[in-house]
Amino acid sequence: MDRPVEFRLIERYLAGMDAGPGVVMGIGDDGAVLRAPAGRDLVMTVDTLVVGTHCPPDADPRDIGHRSLAINLSDLAAMGASPLWALLALTLPSPEESWLAGFAEGFGGLLRQYGLALVGGNLSRGPLAATVQLTGHVAPGAWLSRSGARPGDLLVVSGHPGEAAAGLAAWGEPASPALEPLRQRFLRPEPRIALGLAAVGLARCAIDISDGLLADLAHLCEASGCGAEVDLGSLPLSPALLAWRGRAGALVDVLTGGDDYELLLGCPPDAFEALRTRAAPLPLQVIGRFVAAAGVSVLGEEAAGLVLPPGFRHFDQAGP
Amino acid sequence: MDRPVEFRLIERYLAGMDAGPGVVMGIGDDGAVLRAPAGRDLVMTVDTLVVGTHCPPDADPRDIGHRSLAINLSDLAAMGASPLWALLALTLPSPEESWLAGFAEGFGGLLRQYGLALVGGNLSRGPLAATVQLTGHVAPGAWLSRSGARPGDLLVVSGHPGEAAAGLAAWGEPASPALEPLRQRFLRPEPRIALGLAAVGLARCAIDISDGLLADLAHLCEASGCGAEVDLGSLPLSPALLAWRGRAGALVDVLTGGDDYELLLGCPPDAFEALRTRAAPLPLQVIGRFVAAAGVSVLGEEAAGLVLPPGFRHFDQAGP
Repeated sequence: MDRPVEFRLIERYLAGMDAGPGVVMGIGDDGAVLRAPAGRDLVMTVDTLVVGTHCPPDADPRDIGHRSLAINLSDLAAMGASPLWALLALTLPSPEESWLAGFAEGFGGLLRQYGLALVGGNLSRGPLAATVQLTGHVAPGAWLSRSGARPGDLLVVSGHPGEAAAGLAAWGEPASPALEPLRQRFLRPEPRIALGLAAVGLARCAIDISDGLLADLAHLCEASGCGAEVDLGSLPLSPALLAWRGRAGALVDVLTGGDDYELLLGCPPDAFEALRTRAAPLPLQVIGRFVAAAGVSVLGEEAAGLVLPPGFRHFDQAGP
Repeated sequence: MDRPVEFRLIERYLAGMDAGPGVVMGIGDDGAVLRAPAGRDLVMTVDTLVVGTHCPPDADPRDIGHRSLAINLSDLAAMGASPLWALLALTLPSPEESWLAGFAEGFGGLLRQYGLALVGGNLSRGPLAATVQLTGHVAPGAWLSRSGARPGDLLVVSGHPGEAAAGLAAWGEPASPALEPLRQRFLRPEPRIALGLAAVGLARCAIDISDGLLADLAHLCEASGCGAEVDLGSLPLSPALLAWRGRAGALVDVLTGGDDYELLLGCPPDAFEALRTRAAPLPLQVIGRFVAAAGVSVLGEEAAGLVLPPGFRHFDQAGP
């Protein structure tokens, strides 16, 4: 009896990615057998990238492969966890080998970069989407939660959020040297795993910016039972973003764009310099503070003039 | 700022399902924090149910919820694993609360039946599909693999495979007392967790019948480096299936239908009675044997007259 197409494709493109720490038996049976690292807690997360909803339908499969894993690694980063194992459920309208080869290249590249083992794969016929489930590990009690912020803690953001949203908004524009770095930030977000690990024991709370800085800050505040103030004048505006969007547009992108998957952290003032040193060369910027009163305020002369749409919402946004 | 629809829906329908053994912190942060049971290995699996590919688009959301979890539990059953944690990634065209309520009812019912904790949920806008990732646990070295069959082992099947395929094939038919039990077998497969646990230490190999008895038997044979013979005369044909399909149709359904998720096991002859006793009241049937020569043979006077289509193949089959 011929073996179904599914098995041949999975074997060809996902084989050899299932070796790694704790993998007793990898892909090929009804399930993988794994041994958790001794004395560590596990962290689990799952996320789906629906092509057409979360990224443009004409994106390169290598970028889709990278991005589908990166957005999940970002959740481990926000927990301060070390990556361990991945499972991948792909749905494809038809078994296009060239598409799968590209996807596997992007996915596998990031997998190897973080030492992850792919211990489960499932391929189904259906609309193009990639669901990734990740397991990481942390020292017991030492993960970064959303609920640890206290009034007086500094509000800190990594890198240059907003660039990816600008790159996505200009998806249909002709290629240009000014636009390309922004587009790459959307297609190839770099999960802040190293920052998450560095922040354990220094930061008091963390979240990855997936819905937008203000929206995710609201999640931190709600979980922590406090509020926050954001200083418009201290937001990190990258030259590429400023050049493409102008100052007002750049401010909106930074406050509402979630596609770069930077981290937003709460940090006691006396711990910030140590955090900055550990995070280098990734830049960290203090952009405000947590306060006792509930709610998120945006402070600064320019605030009144900004039209701030709500953060990215899976069901509220118009698709790209 | 309003919280996105996604969060409210997840909170309403998935809340309260995340308590269970080893759950240090459940749903609500960037990831769940879990503690693996001491001295046990973990078993992980992932599978996607695409509505329209794997089940009819007009199926009841409660049945879709049950089935999406059942097909994954079946993989744990085939490994001899005890269920532990679940993560669920749902994509929905729009946030229909009545659909979600129904899905959660079916999914949650089976979750509670098996003492699983739902430790991660993701809701995205996209075509209707449910990806479930499960973690179970086994004693180190004691899982059921596909590769342990030896020539001379009995080929054993649980329950009455083929009923679900007949129920699906007759999806468009008017409801009738003869058809309803077959349809229920498709919509509400019962994962054979208890049988998997009972088979540890007695059976030498196992697989769940998802692609069809012959197709999955071929997987067992290939993994084990042997062949198998199936005795047509010993196949378990349920009265409901015989009445609906006649003998020739029933034989084809049993050999090629995978939707019931029964288990197919290889068992040394002297261990079979103990296995049957442990599995009761679930019936087990010896339907053939493993042999040294590669390949799967179907033996019996009726074999020549049967037109056997290939087993279910995700990309080869016509959708329901």
